[in-house]
Amino acid sequence: MTAIRVLAISGGVGGAKLLRGFYRILPPGTLAALINTGDDFEHLGLHISPDIDTALYTLAGLAHPEQGWGRADETWNFMAALESIGGETWFRLGDADLALHVERTRRLRAGETLTSITRHFAERFGIAANILPMSDDRVATRVITDEGELAFQDYFVRRRCAPRVRALRFDGASSARLSDAARAAFASGELEAIVIAPSNPWLSIDPLLAIPALREALRSATVPVVAVTPIIAGKAVKGPTAKIMAELGIDVSPISVAEHYGDLLDGFMLDSRDAGDADCFSIPADIADTLMNTPDDSARVAESAINLALRKRP
Amino acid sequence: MTAIRVLAISGGVGGAKLLRGFYRILPPGTLAALINTGDDFEHLGLHISPDIDTALYTLAGLAHPEQGWGRADETWNFMAALESIGGETWFRLGDADLALHVERTRRLRAGETLTSITRHFAERFGIAANILPMSDDRVATRVITDEGELAFQDYFVRRRCAPRVRALRFDGASSARLSDAARAAFASGELEAIVIAPSNPWLSIDPLLAIPALREALRSATVPVVAVTPIIAGKAVKGPTAKIMAELGIDVSPISVAEHYGDLLDGFMLDSRDAGDADCFSIPADIADTLMNTPDDSARVAESAINLALRKRP
Repeated sequence: MTAIRVLAISGGVGGAKLLRGFYRILPPGTLAALINTGDDFEHLGLHISPDIDTALYTLAGLAHPEQGWGRADETWNFMAALESIGGETWFRLGDADLALHVERTRRLRAGETLTSITRHFAERFGIAANILPMSDDRVATRVITDEGELAFQDYFVRRRCAPRVRALRFDGASSARLSDAARAAFASGELEAIVIAPSNPWLSIDPLLAIPALREALRSATVPVVAVTPIIAGKAVKGPTAKIMAELGIDVSPISVAEHYGDLLDGFMLDSRDAGDADCFSIPADIADTLMNTPDDSARVAESAINLALRKRP
Repeated sequence: MTAIRVLAISGGVGGAKLLRGFYRILPPGTLAALINTGDDFEHLGLHISPDIDTALYTLAGLAHPEQGWGRADETWNFMAALESIGGETWFRLGDADLALHVERTRRLRAGETLTSITRHFAERFGIAANILPMSDDRVATRVITDEGELAFQDYFVRRRCAPRVRALRFDGASSARLSDAARAAFASGELEAIVIAPSNPWLSIDPLLAIPALREALRSATVPVVAVTPIIAGKAVKGPTAKIMAELGIDVSPISVAEHYGDLLDGFMLDSRDAGDADCFSIPADIADTLMNTPDDSARVAESAINLALRKRP
């Protein structure tokens, strides 16, 4: 698959909703998504890749419709049995979901790359898109809070984002490499747009941007790079984006997000509820209803993002 | 728990039925069972201890009533999901069962011994008996067949015991050590009997006997060592014992089993269906109905085994 037309940069649930839209409107095999792996962690001896799995489950039509992680029609007998023998249960692993973690871990230990494993899973799920880990090298998001430094999942799941965030660090990012598959996506002759999905810019997108080769690939991209706002009317659709922005002393607005991405961006899509802010952008800003409750919503936002990019094509 | 009164030597399902009997008739904390770990293997990156789990599930009342492994009321969503992503499914792991394998593997990797992990699991299951791995050192049963050498589970589960057995080997046994807990069980001042359970002598008991320290502990035991026949009227109650005996050129009879254990034994319990053989034994042989279909059967056979030992007390 070298005929990539859209390359998305994405974290978990918010980004996956946009991926779903691109996947719906683009021809098979022409979507690639570079996914945050800064949230990956080892738990119970298993390698868990939450954002990759959310992308896989979403595009495979297996995702839980509301909870933002895991599978629909999941069962929890592993978890109940683990609890009965005193195992750690703060991170919920469904019986079916567990299969991905066990098989991924086995293959990683056997020397296979996360990129190759993810490609195999996507094929088995019948997904005609390139779901790519941001790197095959380990990057670990660390959250520096008023209660000390926390591993990402300790902050996000165990502590439910309660501690106040002071800063974030992405261990391993500075030496992480792009995979050949990621380079190929950037180099696709068919590429029309690179779209930063409406994931949490600080928690979910920054780990990707902290990889020098990825940032450089974005900077030198020959197609427009556009972002879809994760902030609507001063709030995040889901998750702690607004809370973290406030804790970092940043105004909770789409303008702040655009400024955060800075000169990486050629265009910004803000929500119609924030239409009044459009004039404040130093880059071209389009307005759309960016809420994605249904697959149709996702397709509409994806279409708008591509149109924004096409209009800004150099 | 140092007041061990009965020490059982056991493999999987056949042995566990006798353990169930001892557990029922003995005061809490006075049964110890040394369990075969030659069948243990790494599968999907998980450390699986089939015979230990069968003992745990049986004494916890969680065992599947018919199939001889695994739990009652099990679900199989992990397995179905694993199959959907192309994982290996020849060894069936139930959703709840999986919790033991994941937690055991995690703890082993963290440096805990199998003895300590098993004790912890037993406590969590509310089992007032000492279920002890035969050793904390790895021993791997290898089956030499007419189709080449096979790892135990490849022979037993994947190939369903179809290849003809020529010989067995227990890799690691000669240097495997007894745990302190196993030594303590042998040294218990309350010990009345050591009972070799009606597990497969060649597949399930020989791995234990191949450990020099364990064989020596049996040989120098100050209490009677008795065995309960795994062969009734020329057949094994369950599993490939009779098939293997035939393939090894051994007459399929309780006498062959007693001869196999040789001078380790002070007494042998044969089934009433083989009462005619009683005179052929060079050691004292008691006769009982040794079929254990119900917990009551198990208690009755356990009682008989203890009585046999008590009568033979030096």
